[in-house]
Amino acid sequence: MTERIGLVGLGIMGKPMGKNVLKAGFPLTVWNRTISRAEELKALGARVASSPKEVAEHSDIIITMVSDSPDVQQVVLGDDGVIHGARAGSVLVDMSTISPQVTREIANALQEKQVAMLDAPVSGGEKGAVEGTLSIMVGGDAAVLERVRPVFEALGKRIVHVGVNGMGQVCKLANQIAVVLNNLSMSEALVFAAKSGADVSKVLEAIQAGAAGSWALNNYAPKILRRDFSPGFLVSLQQKDLRLVMEASREMNLALPGTALTYELQKSLQAHGLEREGNFALIKVLEQMTGVEVKG
Amino acid sequence: MTERIGLVGLGIMGKPMGKNVLKAGFPLTVWNRTISRAEELKALGARVASSPKEVAEHSDIIITMVSDSPDVQQVVLGDDGVIHGARAGSVLVDMSTISPQVTREIANALQEKQVAMLDAPVSGGEKGAVEGTLSIMVGGDAAVLERVRPVFEALGKRIVHVGVNGMGQVCKLANQIAVVLNNLSMSEALVFAAKSGADVSKVLEAIQAGAAGSWALNNYAPKILRRDFSPGFLVSLQQKDLRLVMEASREMNLALPGTALTYELQKSLQAHGLEREGNFALIKVLEQMTGVEVKG
Repeated sequence: MTERIGLVGLGIMGKPMGKNVLKAGFPLTVWNRTISRAEELKALGARVASSPKEVAEHSDIIITMVSDSPDVQQVVLGDDGVIHGARAGSVLVDMSTISPQVTREIANALQEKQVAMLDAPVSGGEKGAVEGTLSIMVGGDAAVLERVRPVFEALGKRIVHVGVNGMGQVCKLANQIAVVLNNLSMSEALVFAAKSGADVSKVLEAIQAGAAGSWALNNYAPKILRRDFSPGFLVSLQQKDLRLVMEASREMNLALPGTALTYELQKSLQAHGLEREGNFALIKVLEQMTGVEVKG
Repeated sequence: MTERIGLVGLGIMGKPMGKNVLKAGFPLTVWNRTISRAEELKALGARVASSPKEVAEHSDIIITMVSDSPDVQQVVLGDDGVIHGARAGSVLVDMSTISPQVTREIANALQEKQVAMLDAPVSGGEKGAVEGTLSIMVGGDAAVLERVRPVFEALGKRIVHVGVNGMGQVCKLANQIAVVLNNLSMSEALVFAAKSGADVSKVLEAIQAGAAGSWALNNYAPKILRRDFSPGFLVSLQQKDLRLVMEASREMNLALPGTALTYELQKSLQAHGLEREGNFALIKVLEQMTGVEVKG
């Protein structure tokens, strides 16, 4: 039996993911707050529902892909939420990046209605969503993951079962910690070289293959040398994810001095209206502090 | 004509480098403060001199591989230093990691005696020195580099000409900035996952191939999960290199908030007698702050 898929949230990520679900042959019902975002998927064969509840009524597996914890709470537990339309035995798959704690609360609420949940945030960005090459970090029951796996395989390449509900989100936030601190690492190395008068492209050539190496140094440093700050991953979303890290760390009394520092530094990007640039625009904060520009 | 090579400094790095110089067929004269360190090289055919000055008298190209800026100043410009034995037309190659500013001062002093200089610090550690696979970051005149290249090829694999004298050291310090901040990045991601109750090995599997990826995450994180903190690169040397970064940055009024933070955090390793562990022991500071241990 082919599972009927629901999709709530047709933003930069959700819309291309919906296309890949249709391409893989699944029946799809969609909803988005701004309903015009659904037109392209409708033309490709998707049913357009008038609420998340109605999506759930037509679906066996309901994917949510929205911005933040309150958005997931609203579309799942709110007045017209998924929980009011979902049958016992259906599955909610939240692929948004939200709080691990809120994730556990939603999973508990759904369990009372015999609706299973997976938290399954992704990395790989818009490019990964379009190409169906996302990395998917899954928290929840292993048997439920096996049931959903054919859908995940339409969306991504690397599917890792991390643990119980919430652990997918924990994994995603750990990922984001490493991403922003790798950006800080690259940024400080490059501004040091530039301020010292070095040919930064030569420095990059010398260091990127060794112990200084990172995905950031390989992928973002060449863009910085061209002064191309197009995203990639938006500063605004990076800051939202770091806020989730800071909230979770506060609850655990966990000190993350480097992450906290980077969160504060990136507020300067927000202050200067650079929220729509790529997250590696972090280097601009350091450049501005000393008056140096990294070029290559 | 085969160049005669001199080597001053037979520590963890210098001694295996000396072996590789001999293996490549160059005549070698060596000196070390603790002269017993020269015995193995003597047995392999090296001449043992009684001072850096005497090394220079028997050499066309003199390599220095010592610990810090004052050590290089002493063995090159001091009473029995290289400068007092070197002929016009010979070359000093300093492969230590020291201050870019001190490097330029030494290069100027040597130039007055018509002795050329290259600053050529390395990365790759003891393993790279033994296997002859170091990365060599070269500052100085391109023609001098070409003359020394056959010697570099006996010692390393990646030889990059970064710029004028001092730029090799600038490149090495930029490398060290990226190394320590990549360690901080890995450390904060792993303690967040561990404190959140995740299976850290699963988290590592999920994130290391993507935008969170780094050499540190690939090479050090598995050692941390086994609680193996053997070096690698010593905390004590890492702190010495960061001190050089801090000094150079102060001279330039360059703010490096993440590097400065990591330098301060690593003082805790020194306070607890962990200077002889690998530099990725940084994670122990974060673990100690919150009372969590990363295992896998």
